[in-house]
Amino acid sequence: MRIGELSARTGVPTPTIKYYVREGLLSGGERISSNQVSYDEGHVRRLRLVRALVEIGSLPIAKVREVLSEVDSPDRDLGSRLGIVGAALSARQDQHEATAPADLDTAMAIAERNGWTRMTRDHHQIATLAEVVGTLRLLGLEELIDRADQYARAANLVAAADIAVLKARSDRDEVLETMIVGTVFGDALFGALRRIAQVETSALHFKQSDKRHGFADDR
Amino acid sequence: MRIGELSARTGVPTPTIKYYVREGLLSGGERISSNQVSYDEGHVRRLRLVRALVEIGSLPIAKVREVLSEVDSPDRDLGSRLGIVGAALSARQDQHEATAPADLDTAMAIAERNGWTRMTRDHHQIATLAEVVGTLRLLGLEELIDRADQYARAANLVAAADIAVLKARSDRDEVLETMIVGTVFGDALFGALRRIAQVETSALHFKQSDKRHGFADDR
Repeated sequence: MRIGELSARTGVPTPTIKYYVREGLLSGGERISSNQVSYDEGHVRRLRLVRALVEIGSLPIAKVREVLSEVDSPDRDLGSRLGIVGAALSARQDQHEATAPADLDTAMAIAERNGWTRMTRDHHQIATLAEVVGTLRLLGLEELIDRADQYARAANLVAAADIAVLKARSDRDEVLETMIVGTVFGDALFGALRRIAQVETSALHFKQSDKRHGFADDR
Repeated sequence: MRIGELSARTGVPTPTIKYYVREGLLSGGERISSNQVSYDEGHVRRLRLVRALVEIGSLPIAKVREVLSEVDSPDRDLGSRLGIVGAALSARQDQHEATAPADLDTAMAIAERNGWTRMTRDHHQIATLAEVVGTLRLLGLEELIDRADQYARAANLVAAADIAVLKARSDRDEVLETMIVGTVFGDALFGALRRIAQVETSALHFKQSDKRHGFADDR
């Protein structure tokens, strides 16, 4: 297909596609005449992946290149590749401050209370959780930390849905791509649903007579 | 307090504080001598709010200014102010493409199945959900749309926790600030927990004998 069709099928504008090719995130198409380049289904899949990482995941180009090189290492163990990709997709990757021991304690306590037995103090996902906990403390939002178990139950529900989607894929590369795209867009899906649930729950808890509180319905 | 203490208490570097003052996101401190400016608790609170919006919410400066002007309009109805702020915090605010009717249908069907009776086709949160649905379709992730109800149940759990935190606040301005910061950092908290739950759920579903699938534990 020509670049225009590639653009239409992925929703990525033509100049952006050319930029990704220049940056090495997407291989160039096959030149079939002096003024025509042809792209295939592989380009469609790769472009959707790049778009997920750059636009929704907000990953810097260098990080995207790192993730893609894992996707492109078929000889390596899929487990370790998934792990590297998962780490790259973790929230607050840009922060590398020392994590406070008290925040690590809280993160581990949340994991233990929820039966997450694979987590240890040196797991990078626990570090990410501890950083969020530390930020919430700094912001005076301890109540949200106290309610983390309710968030954790919700996270288990969502993870079960994610795994079901993953299990439906058989091809190794497809599993990795689905995991990446699913993680990034799953966050977007959950965010949209959470905001609707806030409006609805708020309306139930704070009746018309008490309009001072709650997440508003501004229509 | 001096700017150094303000920086320590909020985690915002001094040059960034000065930048926020220049951009009008934070009022300047009180000049108490020729070379000293003093900041108070109001600055601490405002700075935490700005940081949440800029750094975690990734809102552009102009949008932050808009949100803050709502926070600073005490005479207006809190309900409508919360709504304007909620819209600003919605995902994919930068997208203003026409939403496909089929995606709106799907978004409304999800809302109806989950008893979210306040949602209508022209609600901006439904538009956001429809955009996510459209992107998932484009990416070939229809299975995730099929599992949206499970995500929705999780969203209800989280929203209930959010409302409980909000109900604990009595001051009007505090409610608005808590809603903003809670929405932004609640996403970060949920994201961190979701990634842990993926690792754990994956380990349960895909045993050692089948290491080809799942969200990896790369430690």
